[in-house]
Amino acid sequence: MSDSTSAARLERQIQFIIETDKLKEVVRQTLCTQSRRHENSAEHSWHFALMIIVLAEHANEPINVLRVLKMVLIHDLVEIDAGDTYAYDTKNMADQHEREARAAERIFGLLPADQAAEFRAIWDEFEARTTPEAKFAAACDRFHPMLLNCLTGGETWKKHGVTHDKVVARNQHARDGSVPLWRYAEQMLAEAKTKGSFADAPSTNAG
Amino acid sequence: MSDSTSAARLERQIQFIIETDKLKEVVRQTLCTQSRRHENSAEHSWHFALMIIVLAEHANEPINVLRVLKMVLIHDLVEIDAGDTYAYDTKNMADQHEREARAAERIFGLLPADQAAEFRAIWDEFEARTTPEAKFAAACDRFHPMLLNCLTGGETWKKHGVTHDKVVARNQHARDGSVPLWRYAEQMLAEAKTKGSFADAPSTNAG
Repeated sequence: MSDSTSAARLERQIQFIIETDKLKEVVRQTLCTQSRRHENSAEHSWHFALMIIVLAEHANEPINVLRVLKMVLIHDLVEIDAGDTYAYDTKNMADQHEREARAAERIFGLLPADQAAEFRAIWDEFEARTTPEAKFAAACDRFHPMLLNCLTGGETWKKHGVTHDKVVARNQHARDGSVPLWRYAEQMLAEAKTKGSFADAPSTNAG
Repeated sequence: MSDSTSAARLERQIQFIIETDKLKEVVRQTLCTQSRRHENSAEHSWHFALMIIVLAEHANEPINVLRVLKMVLIHDLVEIDAGDTYAYDTKNMADQHEREARAAERIFGLLPADQAAEFRAIWDEFEARTTPEAKFAAACDRFHPMLLNCLTGGETWKKHGVTHDKVVARNQHARDGSVPLWRYAEQMLAEAKTKGSFADAPSTNAG
């Protein structure tokens, strides 16, 4: 690679780094445990990546940790264009993948072609959730907001009318990535239920 | 490993994850490019890790990218106890390492002993800046705030009386990790200087 090619690559890569600074402004429903402000997707991505290096031993199958970390570090970049879609917002989830795929095209497309293709493949792998790496990443991605919600009294769940049953149904695929983590989550959610951290289930009137 | 040992490990690891949520509240001098609010150390750590996977090819020597990522993801955790020390704050820099080493002891000590030792060794390696991995991490860690400062008109530099010469002197060790990145930085800083993004140098009066 000539010096000028290398310099041109570096310029594109730095333009990508600049563009991705926008992820710090994408706000999620989850609250931070200390200030109780809403978490943004950049700091979520960091905390999620930290979970990966700490918890990798609990994956159901052997995983390539570097590949999982790449997945995690880029997984939310599409939100720069598509915004964060709340996990219980079934209306906006309908076209979520389409919106995010367009975003992936534009944002990864800022990189040199080989890296754009690599990142797109990693993002597709995360979305498809079929490899051991993607399943473990998904398990941690689901666990993270449940943990923060439990630590903040379920404020967000109650605000959006999310019941205990709904959280279990939406997140139980975490089991496919890590049985121990899902077991921990089940117990944590059961405890949160006794503390009143969920919305009440709609009352059934059979009478 | 028995099931109960494994459960006890997981419990300690999750307590560590909970503790580290505090990094989202540690505020740095650097401004985010979009909202111009101060960046926190959690989102900085994410952006820094993203730089590593994008720019690894520009390291001066071959590097183990997974090891660099671990370094980056944990490097700022000590700030939970020790706070962020501004790169040009020579007063607080005097006892910075001592304060941070105490914090490393406590925070990594929340993990199971083998992981506590691994993380501490990685953090020490980052601080010592002698391996190719640590040198490249340091190069990106120095580049990141320079980039954001240049993109926000040098507001923070001007506020703290930081001149162009001071920034070059403080950051030129980035060259030890990546010559191309430091070359890029030099040009970026020269352009920022022509735009008036630094504090003025104190006038010398030889007359």
